[in-house]
Amino acid sequence: MNRRMVVFLLSRILFAEAILMLPSVLVGIIYREAITWCFLPAIGVLLLLGLFGLKKPRNTTIYAREGFFVVAASWVLMSLFGAIPFWLSGGFDTFWDCLFEIVSGFTTTGASILETVEQLPHCVLFWRSFSHWIGGMGVLVFVLAVMPMSEERSMHLMRAEVPGPVVGKLVPRMRDTAKILYSVYAALTMLLIILLVAGGMPLFDSICHAFGAAGTGGFSVKNAGIKAYDSTYIHVVLSTFMLLFGVNFSLYHLILIGKWKNAVQSEELHVYGGIVAAAVALITINTFSAVKGFGLTLRDAYFQVSSIITTTGYATVNFDQWPGFSKMTLLLLMVFGACAGSTGGGLKISRVVILFKTARQEVRRLLHPRAVTVVRMEGKPVGSDLIRATLAFFLLYIACLATGVFLLSLGEQDFLTNFTATLACLSNIGPGRSSCCSAR
Amino acid sequence: MNRRMVVFLLSRILFAEAILMLPSVLVGIIYREAITWCFLPAIGVLLLLGLFGLKKPRNTTIYAREGFFVVAASWVLMSLFGAIPFWLSGGFDTFWDCLFEIVSGFTTTGASILETVEQLPHCVLFWRSFSHWIGGMGVLVFVLAVMPMSEERSMHLMRAEVPGPVVGKLVPRMRDTAKILYSVYAALTMLLIILLVAGGMPLFDSICHAFGAAGTGGFSVKNAGIKAYDSTYIHVVLSTFMLLFGVNFSLYHLILIGKWKNAVQSEELHVYGGIVAAAVALITINTFSAVKGFGLTLRDAYFQVSSIITTTGYATVNFDQWPGFSKMTLLLLMVFGACAGSTGGGLKISRVVILFKTARQEVRRLLHPRAVTVVRMEGKPVGSDLIRATLAFFLLYIACLATGVFLLSLGEQDFLTNFTATLACLSNIGPGRSSCCSAR
Repeated sequence: MNRRMVVFLLSRILFAEAILMLPSVLVGIIYREAITWCFLPAIGVLLLLGLFGLKKPRNTTIYAREGFFVVAASWVLMSLFGAIPFWLSGGFDTFWDCLFEIVSGFTTTGASILETVEQLPHCVLFWRSFSHWIGGMGVLVFVLAVMPMSEERSMHLMRAEVPGPVVGKLVPRMRDTAKILYSVYAALTMLLIILLVAGGMPLFDSICHAFGAAGTGGFSVKNAGIKAYDSTYIHVVLSTFMLLFGVNFSLYHLILIGKWKNAVQSEELHVYGGIVAAAVALITINTFSAVKGFGLTLRDAYFQVSSIITTTGYATVNFDQWPGFSKMTLLLLMVFGACAGSTGGGLKISRVVILFKTARQEVRRLLHPRAVTVVRMEGKPVGSDLIRATLAFFLLYIACLATGVFLLSLGEQDFLTNFTATLACLSNIGPGRSSCCSAR
Repeated sequence: MNRRMVVFLLSRILFAEAILMLPSVLVGIIYREAITWCFLPAIGVLLLLGLFGLKKPRNTTIYAREGFFVVAASWVLMSLFGAIPFWLSGGFDTFWDCLFEIVSGFTTTGASILETVEQLPHCVLFWRSFSHWIGGMGVLVFVLAVMPMSEERSMHLMRAEVPGPVVGKLVPRMRDTAKILYSVYAALTMLLIILLVAGGMPLFDSICHAFGAAGTGGFSVKNAGIKAYDSTYIHVVLSTFMLLFGVNFSLYHLILIGKWKNAVQSEELHVYGGIVAAAVALITINTFSAVKGFGLTLRDAYFQVSSIITTTGYATVNFDQWPGFSKMTLLLLMVFGACAGSTGGGLKISRVVILFKTARQEVRRLLHPRAVTVVRMEGKPVGSDLIRATLAFFLLYIACLATGVFLLSLGEQDFLTNFTATLACLSNIGPGRSSCCSAR
């Protein structure tokens, strides 16, 4: 293990976090909030630690091991330091609550320990939501974008961080890839903010909710969450953008460089769209009530489906009171998740497709032992290694789910609560059952 | 598809079923039950259809396709004809109920549509339990034992029928293998009957319950199931034999031919024993109550664990009232199931072991991309094809579970009921939640 290089990378990341705290300070100053000082100690310490990253070590060789370690360590350290402002702000009971909140933020889970949030100062609320935006793309991608590093090395970091079965390089140099991803991410976020403001949502709320949607996190600045805004326009805009942030970002890059065709032909995109359409249709039919009317039923189904499949976790209705079939549909969406290479969680659509095709192929193989069958994805044949890795990922996913439910069963809650709670955390949705509104 | 051969095989199987109905007739005669005539029509038709199996076709070549078709068709046909006696006996409301009951019997699921069973005539009760014994070993194994056939051919049938990831041939000739398996099966069943009678259980009850335990089915002749016998001896004997029927039968063969060592060294056996011991310990601790006392708590834990992991489904306590942790433990056992090559259902321990090791290996592989890792089972390295097939089996298992729960969610029951009901049927346990006593 190349200790010097690990220290170098980590201190760079902590330095980056210090920078990432400045916007929150700015917000505090704008709103003239005295409590804004709560950020200064953390920023100070982070800057000091950042000094270790000034001199690049001679030997910069790192391998998968270092890659995983740096990623894991950076999440832990960033959470620890990111929790300090919460703690000093006095808005939380214990440091553990602060840690829970920031981890939930960086991991874009969106589960909150807070009953109400409106009493928190703006600078804290901003940092809380901003953590989603930072976590959404993955801290490492950010670091890659700002740090020069040889290909071989950065791939190790990328692999350890990037969501989805395959690590795609859009352009020859990893660093440029990261920059492109971030530009798309930032552009879409800006656009959403503008559209929300245009819809009558206050600027501050728009920014925070845009962060929540972009990172598919789900923190809100209102106690009632998105329910607080009784505007079909806002609901539809948010639903649509949540879906957009669930699309593989490389497709946006393809569109940017004029390769519309390839983007539109993406198999994963079609399946993603198909699943969303089907789920919305099923839930609309299943939850339809004459009292509410078709329009509102459709709107709410659309919002909930978008929020759950992208693992964002915003809610405009208490779907815990929906009929079992609709709840099961949402439960399946939780497992599927959004597209690979997006900010969403879950298994990822591309994995689901590979799993489905593999299952179909295995059955065929049983009937025709000698037949040569190939699993194809996006037109290209899928290598047996990737299939195996995907199956193993699925296995680990289910194993984690089972373990979580098993351990939670030592507690007081019933099976469904434990099951959905574990699933909600495993797929980074946040609110589990009977807490669909805790996406605050 | 070799039609003639398929017809030949199926008619042989139907002929076999006619023979298998005779013991029930005998029981009816012994108990002087007039209703015994209800078997005669079925037997008559089956014998007639058996005539098609008199002349062996010239071309006896069959492939996997035929193998699967014959197995599938034989299960369907045997169930249809096996339901007729139930129907004519008048003990059931509709023919569908009869079909449900016999399918539950042949598949050793053990779920029953009957609220009470004691009103049924002995000959019907016997046929009901005997179906477990027949289904336990798999009809085909029986047919293989009684029908001369070339190796290549019989392997196709064996593969389609035998439980577990690998088809082991104990002796060069498939047919002899089948005979050995059946001898072990019959011997153990006899032994259990003797021990139960020695424990004071009536002969008829002993025979029926022995069938239920041997096939890991779970039908009982008492409304209260095994609860009806308030004898620790009977509970312990049944628990122990349920576990014995959950062991890979090839181990018994190894013991018979004096290869004790190899049998005792079986990795699957160790894991199986370990899981049982751990589950019994956890549940005993979790359900302990001073009122009941340690002895009884341990006894009931032992019985329930044995019954569930072997997917038998007998119950001596209403474990639906157990704490969540114990219920979750049982739920996991339901998924694991017993050893491969046994009469139990579920994923099978050997698959669980392969899955666990594969998961561990995949994680290692991520950390050391270049390291060469091999998954070993029973000391031998596991081929990538088998690993892949096992992962695919797991995938299909989970997919079936999800589909089942998804479709059931259209009904009235809650999530847990749907979940356990699907699981109980998928693993051939029978009684799901809040029906732990329906193993009648």
